[in-house]
Amino acid sequence: MSKLENLNDLFLEELRDLYDAENQLLKALPEMEEAAHSADLKIVFNEHRLQTGTHVQRLEAIFESLQQPVKGRSCKAMKGLIAEARGHIKEKAASPVKDASLIAAAQRVEHYEIAGYGTARTFAATLGYTEASDLLQQTLNEEGAADERLTYLSRGLNLEAMIVPDFQVRN
Amino acid sequence: MSKLENLNDLFLEELRDLYDAENQLLKALPEMEEAAHSADLKIVFNEHRLQTGTHVQRLEAIFESLQQPVKGRSCKAMKGLIAEARGHIKEKAASPVKDASLIAAAQRVEHYEIAGYGTARTFAATLGYTEASDLLQQTLNEEGAADERLTYLSRGLNLEAMIVPDFQVRN
Repeated sequence: MSKLENLNDLFLEELRDLYDAENQLLKALPEMEEAAHSADLKIVFNEHRLQTGTHVQRLEAIFESLQQPVKGRSCKAMKGLIAEARGHIKEKAASPVKDASLIAAAQRVEHYEIAGYGTARTFAATLGYTEASDLLQQTLNEEGAADERLTYLSRGLNLEAMIVPDFQVRN
Repeated sequence: MSKLENLNDLFLEELRDLYDAENQLLKALPEMEEAAHSADLKIVFNEHRLQTGTHVQRLEAIFESLQQPVKGRSCKAMKGLIAEARGHIKEKAASPVKDASLIAAAQRVEHYEIAGYGTARTFAATLGYTEASDLLQQTLNEEGAADERLTYLSRGLNLEAMIVPDFQVRN
């Protein structure tokens, strides 16, 4: 078991957690896009996948700037979040209800990332890693914006999901 | 497998997810309190455990107002979040580093709950369940305040964690 002696060690551990989390998410987002019914929601998931690719690259740039190997550390929380999202993907639900459930799962993922990047950004700033702190802040801003976009999109979908005739029920 | 036909079905599923998540957290918070070194952090975890008890009671009141059985639905995401927190509890780390890692884990938990209660509150409001929406908003406000309190506390601890003499390293 690794021994964390100072904040720098913990910062590297946080980066590895985020790196693994983002890579897990990269695989799950196309499944969420596929499962979504609303064209707007499909676009949001597709664009977020592209953005997630950029977030992975930023983490790689930070590892390199710190002369650290680029590697992840199994993120159990993201595993659980994605297992939950896959549960919604498989669940039998009327179209707008399915979309509302996918948004609920995606917002939980966004908030995990908001918390993780918030912590990593603060650690980087405390340690004087200005460039890393700026890159992490950029990703944090984008995760926040993605969350707001999902909130905006959910408003219309929730109203649709309120009453769904039986014939719309599908897997 | 249950079939979600409308937003009401999804709302009940969200409530069951939150009910299970809060009950899991009730068990984990005393372990986090025990593992924390800072007296202030111990107090925050202890107070949050008491608050979590109130959140559980509010969910029970909502189930009852909707004439639904009080029951949870295994929340895989919270399982993962708590597994991650327990990893930090067991990890060998210098005292302030351990505390910083516990705060990082706790803020991820808070954000999970912020996303979950935000969704549930919006569903309740859309469905016209005014009382449930108000109760969920109260909990949401408290989760947000707990997150801010952890951010405030982390500032001092991060500086302590920056440089830790070797003799302070402990399990």
